[in-house]
Amino acid sequence: MDLESEIRAIVGDRGILTGDDVRMRSCDPFRDVAPGGSIIVRPASTEEVSAVMRLCHARGQRVVTHGGRTGVAGGAFVGEDEIVISLERMNVIEEICSVTSLAVVGAGVTIEALQNAAAEQGMFYPIDLGAKGTATIGGSIATNAGGNRVLRWGMTRQNVMGLEAVLADGTVVSAMNRLIKNNTGYDVKQFFIGTEGTTGIVTRAVMRLVPALASQSVAFVAVDSEEALLALLTRARKLATLSAFEVMWPDYYDIVATSGSDRSPLAQGHYAYVLIEAMGYSRELDAQVFEEFLESVYTEGLVVDAVLAASDKQIADLWRVREGAECIVRDMSPFVSSDVSLDVRDVTKFVDLVRSRLAEQYSIVRTATFGHLGDNNIHLALHVGTETLAEEPNVERVMFDALRTFGGALTAEHGIGQLKRAFLPDHKHPGEMAVMRAVRAALDPNSLLNRDVLF
Amino acid sequence: MDLESEIRAIVGDRGILTGDDVRMRSCDPFRDVAPGGSIIVRPASTEEVSAVMRLCHARGQRVVTHGGRTGVAGGAFVGEDEIVISLERMNVIEEICSVTSLAVVGAGVTIEALQNAAAEQGMFYPIDLGAKGTATIGGSIATNAGGNRVLRWGMTRQNVMGLEAVLADGTVVSAMNRLIKNNTGYDVKQFFIGTEGTTGIVTRAVMRLVPALASQSVAFVAVDSEEALLALLTRARKLATLSAFEVMWPDYYDIVATSGSDRSPLAQGHYAYVLIEAMGYSRELDAQVFEEFLESVYTEGLVVDAVLAASDKQIADLWRVREGAECIVRDMSPFVSSDVSLDVRDVTKFVDLVRSRLAEQYSIVRTATFGHLGDNNIHLALHVGTETLAEEPNVERVMFDALRTFGGALTAEHGIGQLKRAFLPDHKHPGEMAVMRAVRAALDPNSLLNRDVLF
Repeated sequence: MDLESEIRAIVGDRGILTGDDVRMRSCDPFRDVAPGGSIIVRPASTEEVSAVMRLCHARGQRVVTHGGRTGVAGGAFVGEDEIVISLERMNVIEEICSVTSLAVVGAGVTIEALQNAAAEQGMFYPIDLGAKGTATIGGSIATNAGGNRVLRWGMTRQNVMGLEAVLADGTVVSAMNRLIKNNTGYDVKQFFIGTEGTTGIVTRAVMRLVPALASQSVAFVAVDSEEALLALLTRARKLATLSAFEVMWPDYYDIVATSGSDRSPLAQGHYAYVLIEAMGYSRELDAQVFEEFLESVYTEGLVVDAVLAASDKQIADLWRVREGAECIVRDMSPFVSSDVSLDVRDVTKFVDLVRSRLAEQYSIVRTATFGHLGDNNIHLALHVGTETLAEEPNVERVMFDALRTFGGALTAEHGIGQLKRAFLPDHKHPGEMAVMRAVRAALDPNSLLNRDVLF
Repeated sequence: MDLESEIRAIVGDRGILTGDDVRMRSCDPFRDVAPGGSIIVRPASTEEVSAVMRLCHARGQRVVTHGGRTGVAGGAFVGEDEIVISLERMNVIEEICSVTSLAVVGAGVTIEALQNAAAEQGMFYPIDLGAKGTATIGGSIATNAGGNRVLRWGMTRQNVMGLEAVLADGTVVSAMNRLIKNNTGYDVKQFFIGTEGTTGIVTRAVMRLVPALASQSVAFVAVDSEEALLALLTRARKLATLSAFEVMWPDYYDIVATSGSDRSPLAQGHYAYVLIEAMGYSRELDAQVFEEFLESVYTEGLVVDAVLAASDKQIADLWRVREGAECIVRDMSPFVSSDVSLDVRDVTKFVDLVRSRLAEQYSIVRTATFGHLGDNNIHLALHVGTETLAEEPNVERVMFDALRTFGGALTAEHGIGQLKRAFLPDHKHPGEMAVMRAVRAALDPNSLLNRDVLF
């Protein structure tokens, strides 16, 4: 039998797509990148994934795993000799439990679907990111997705309690732990989180939930020096309810504030702007704690101007300032965007270094700098004229070289995929590379899984 | 040259112990268990550990790693054909930073030394356990140590930002990440946390700190049903400042309360007793939040009696009730102790099942049940008469068999070591065992590291 027939015998007609159904599917959220291969398998269960992988193992058939395909690092690109295994039909929320604070879900459940199902039971799933309507739990586990509020509840890794995965040879690994404390041998789930699908295919998971929050306090403040900014961050960490500390530098804020989009809560001309958010369970007292915090940092001179949101509408408006990406797109396109992580004390020095090195090569250099400073994570948009996109490889190289001098991470939350692969060895200790290679080879000796991803 | 001379050439005279210095050292905190081998190597740097392991690799020499040797699972036991590598001289705290909220330490630094150094800088290291004065950071990473307050700040795993390790062949793996968000390839540190020294020797680490807490609220409450206990836990999770939820059942509380040790804050006769602790950064408002919580659970009838500590002395007194181990030792010895983890809804059923199965075999069966219920972690002490210790293997087997029917974990925080090794395969999915074996073989193909530990 040919491959397609053998797969069809395992997953049935609903479980396989071919022809135009494959060609019309994009492997990238922003561009049209059709799969190189001609088959998309859509198993309905872990057992079917296992049977398909046993078949692929026997045939030496390479596979790329698809979740929501919202990653921006090319992790879902498919070569001509590869088939796709999509988890889209494994989208059942099996359980939401408020007593044990967890959810059991199929890998194909979207982040938003889990958030909504949790909310119906008075619970909250803390991982939140722009693509949540399409991004899946399986994909977010494979990429260790971050997003807002990581400084409170951690990356996806910290929210996975257990998982089930299928190895390249079809072996099912059931590590569906539901316990907070469990030191029974290696914590096997760690070998599948953030490995971008190179160690196994995640099919189900146990996710940690927290009780739904009752209060949300948001302030937008201005600071007049780097010293004040860092002191403010240190002070903000003493809010037990702190859930976001988002910084915008003037190169970003000036664009958004003058965009005519009514996103100008404070006057321009300050060193930096910070959106501070706190979420808790005691509406009135949380607000008091937050106001007390704001008063003290203002009295001490750390903050020179501030707006405190007095309604849900005002909270949404302040968040819109931070989420002003479309203003940047309108004002500064084309640009190269980035997702780097570095010591909070080095951000200004890093951006200055990138700017000065680019200025040696380009007559026009513009930046927009903002990010989750509480998590070390900066998004830096770079424009070097109308040819910016053609210059992307060089601009990235300049930026990553600068980053390396500060010991930064070339991706904070997006991952390496295929697009950052060339940079990885320069940013990883040789011993780390050796461990990664050894573990990957141990779990997928024939390189069947996501072969062109990571390293 | 013989092994000893070759090692001496690497680490110098201060770096090696032989003869009585070896024989007088115990590998167990409670019993006298001398090492089987005759050499303890005490390297002063990662480079020395690497050179020693290159030597051992060339010679096929097996090694056991020693931290503070406070583990109770036999993870530090040394066979006749093994030498010890002790990290005791790598005890330098290299850095404490309040801006980036982290510490850089040698593996031989004790938990208490890190706590103290952090406190001097206004910071707090959250991992806390009885052996903290001797237990080392390296050992706590290797065993993923837990302790109190895991429900707020996680196990040791959640508090490691980066680490440096030496593989069995001497390869240095430097994964000294300092960033909260870093998705640059596999998270290599995870391959060395909780692996009980079987994948590499941890030599240095970057540990996450939090700002020193300003407030501590403690209440001791009584509940009259399992339903009320679970509802109380669900409600307590809505305290953003919750740091402990410690439950004592009557078989434990009655012993401590009647011990004459002045540890009887509430009358006997209730279903269970709970010590609830909250820690935050706003002294007055935190106290208000806590009192509001207590009032509401009392009004709703979840809690039928309560004491709220009004001073540091009263806080310490209430914690002494929970830490009444010596009363259990005096009243119930000899007994088999345990460290299991299971669904909070199954605790009573589990204990009842253990008791009834033991009652089929022994005329005397006594239990004392208490634990970190907020973390799923129960400590169950079992007494079956004066021959309890001789019966330990059978008692453990009965307990673990019962545990398995509830999907519990046979060790929540102590680890497997050598002593629980025989039980591991029965409690781990075959796929998990396969992954553990593959990863261990990939990183230590000649089984040089802690050979008799885990599996």
